[in-house]
Amino acid sequence: MAESYRLTASQALSLMQKGDLTVEDYAKSLLGRVNARDNTVKAWAYLDPDFVLAQAKKLDEIPAEKRGPLHGIAIGVKDVILTKDMPTCHNSPIYKGEGPSLVDAAPIITLRAAGALIFGKTTTTEFASTVEGGPSTNPHDSGRTPGGSSSGSGAAVGDYQVPISLGTQTGGSTIRPGSFNGIYALKPTWGAISREGLAQYSMTCDTLGLYARSVEDLELISKVFQLSDDEPIPSTSFPIKGSKIAFCKTHVWGKAGPGTKAAWEKAQELLRREGASVEEIDLPEDFEKIEQWHANVLAGEGRTSFLGNYLLAKDKLHHSIQNHVENSTNLSRKAQLESYDGCAILRPVWDEIAGKYDAIFTPSVVDEAPVGIESTGDASFCSMWTILQVPCLNIPGFAGENGLPVGLTLVGARYHDLHVLHAGKAIGEVFGKEGGFKHKLY
Amino acid sequence: MAESYRLTASQALSLMQKGDLTVEDYAKSLLGRVNARDNTVKAWAYLDPDFVLAQAKKLDEIPAEKRGPLHGIAIGVKDVILTKDMPTCHNSPIYKGEGPSLVDAAPIITLRAAGALIFGKTTTTEFASTVEGGPSTNPHDSGRTPGGSSSGSGAAVGDYQVPISLGTQTGGSTIRPGSFNGIYALKPTWGAISREGLAQYSMTCDTLGLYARSVEDLELISKVFQLSDDEPIPSTSFPIKGSKIAFCKTHVWGKAGPGTKAAWEKAQELLRREGASVEEIDLPEDFEKIEQWHANVLAGEGRTSFLGNYLLAKDKLHHSIQNHVENSTNLSRKAQLESYDGCAILRPVWDEIAGKYDAIFTPSVVDEAPVGIESTGDASFCSMWTILQVPCLNIPGFAGENGLPVGLTLVGARYHDLHVLHAGKAIGEVFGKEGGFKHKLY
Repeated sequence: MAESYRLTASQALSLMQKGDLTVEDYAKSLLGRVNARDNTVKAWAYLDPDFVLAQAKKLDEIPAEKRGPLHGIAIGVKDVILTKDMPTCHNSPIYKGEGPSLVDAAPIITLRAAGALIFGKTTTTEFASTVEGGPSTNPHDSGRTPGGSSSGSGAAVGDYQVPISLGTQTGGSTIRPGSFNGIYALKPTWGAISREGLAQYSMTCDTLGLYARSVEDLELISKVFQLSDDEPIPSTSFPIKGSKIAFCKTHVWGKAGPGTKAAWEKAQELLRREGASVEEIDLPEDFEKIEQWHANVLAGEGRTSFLGNYLLAKDKLHHSIQNHVENSTNLSRKAQLESYDGCAILRPVWDEIAGKYDAIFTPSVVDEAPVGIESTGDASFCSMWTILQVPCLNIPGFAGENGLPVGLTLVGARYHDLHVLHAGKAIGEVFGKEGGFKHKLY
Repeated sequence: MAESYRLTASQALSLMQKGDLTVEDYAKSLLGRVNARDNTVKAWAYLDPDFVLAQAKKLDEIPAEKRGPLHGIAIGVKDVILTKDMPTCHNSPIYKGEGPSLVDAAPIITLRAAGALIFGKTTTTEFASTVEGGPSTNPHDSGRTPGGSSSGSGAAVGDYQVPISLGTQTGGSTIRPGSFNGIYALKPTWGAISREGLAQYSMTCDTLGLYARSVEDLELISKVFQLSDDEPIPSTSFPIKGSKIAFCKTHVWGKAGPGTKAAWEKAQELLRREGASVEEIDLPEDFEKIEQWHANVLAGEGRTSFLGNYLLAKDKLHHSIQNHVENSTNLSRKAQLESYDGCAILRPVWDEIAGKYDAIFTPSVVDEAPVGIESTGDASFCSMWTILQVPCLNIPGFAGENGLPVGLTLVGARYHDLHVLHAGKAIGEVFGKEGGFKHKLY
């Protein structure tokens, strides 16, 4: 199937299971798409088509009964995640030209064991820690950023070059590219997926993120990673009708641009029309402090995380990374610890609030992707949820003033990842049909 | 100097700085010691003498003005820490026979940048997560365990095969081998040193640990890792006379054996004799819950951390690791989250308690190293402090009923690592002189 690149992972898997598609043909189709679009989108930091095809052929040789749940599914991997057969360069001049890492990050071990085809490495900002973009562009408008720091992973899935990719999030690095590229993005509960073998910026915030063009695909991957809530997930669809849905602007709302504001109104209208009870909620006052606490934790932990590379080659590090190591904000240990402890107190408070609703929405981004690829954008609407360590799902469907995609985030209580996906699947169908953005093939 | 292996790192450094010792000669002496003792102690998972010498010669070629603060200092590295030029096998049949990792863990990048001679990889229990010992033995009695999981790192420093080594601690894996081998062991504040490139068991607990035979050496390494407290450390010695020192048995005290009980009494006697005001303190009742919370967090996080290797080769994993992935204790997410939140509330409570004293002691271990190498011992006295994320310094000096070493732990408030070292240096001199154990060369 020449155009199998258009399929979601679940669709491709189904064809492969029926014997209607080989991994090799699937890989050829994806590589064809990459070939057609890479000059524009530039999502890949490393991609070796011959190696991809060789791996695909090996997967085709595995007898049906020994195939894993992700057999042959192509996955793009952010270039801050170790892969034993590909280099990991962190978009850093220090690691430019490295050979294969010879070590797989824990999530890669899991994905390979499930039969995935590790396709290539996707672009990132330097050590997934800056907002300095390039060379990747937004597949919907090459004059705009795909967001970051998981730039290539967001763009590659948004552009149908792979069905699934891995990102990371420390501020808003998974959710923002999700919104900018018009795709689903899941930042799971902190700790729900191993982060062994990922570049470290903030131990408290760093989380592996997942991209796909359907919730079904995210559910597929979540099953492989054995995400699990305490409460079983019904096998029936999430009933929007009669559900209690909250919208939480947060104290950052003042930054919301017209695209996000319009999506906000439209989403409420659609959900009400579907029979949901919708209300806007305010968080307790202390939650306003989280923005500063998040900045403090990143400063305190970045100071430690980047020390080695600083000592190795200070001049090759982005000034923001140098600043972290030099503690340029003069952050005290006391302020760092108060930030930890303050967030820790609010985590169960949030969980309790979340428990009162069937779904809670919050903005994903300030607005549609801004013009230019120099900056990957603003994480303001995400950082609170990252340090609260709660599951966040970007649901695409809306369009900004320039027709670029805008998403909203469905946010849940800690370790309610599957619930968030379940609710997001039903709601995402509504947003996708009537939100105003249509995912096109360029 | 044929016997330079006997020196502390600070002593060797001083000779090298004066031009009285080359790195090559120093390395030869250490290798000689290894050669003489390795059949008995078996501390190394990987050691290539030719490679060590080649590295040493390269270090000797560096002009004096370009030498780092650890120039030529040999460091043993626990075999769960990635090293670009040596294999990392985690004492797992899955990774047996691996080639070099081609990636350095962040602490290794830091140490190399400071001029250290990465000497070899030391033995560990499987993924630093079990208590199943072997093949390493205790240098003071080869019929006994050196402790674990940082077995080889503790034994190698205790046996004068290297002056400094790296361990990790998730329960008591740094402090216990410190006590059993009669050496100083520092488990710093969680997050004070990067853990990028270390095997992951528990994100909340895993901490890089440091071994040395003097506090001066730990101060040297701490400087390289840029550990820093808010309060400046006086350049003068910690004054034991007039200091306020607490002894905290904790609720685990019932497990203390005769060696630890004797050390407990002796330490108080010595400190009183030196003019300190010594008192025993009890912790608030809630601290008793931490033991279970620690077990819950390890179960919940181990479930995630070991998933990849479980899917890859379940049958090659220790049953305790399989149990984690299979959630054999049926731990709920609710219980896991309550454990996180409970510990988080007690961290600042502990910091406040610690702030009232100049030093606080707690047991390091149940007793001197037990007979046999099958089990690496019991972490009961350490796990609370690990999950409280506070700095712990094992101070050697005492002897158990069979003459094996016993240490006590000086424990501090979070990010008071340098204070703990400062107090530990003065107190360690007293314990070392009069505690009853004399470090011998076998």
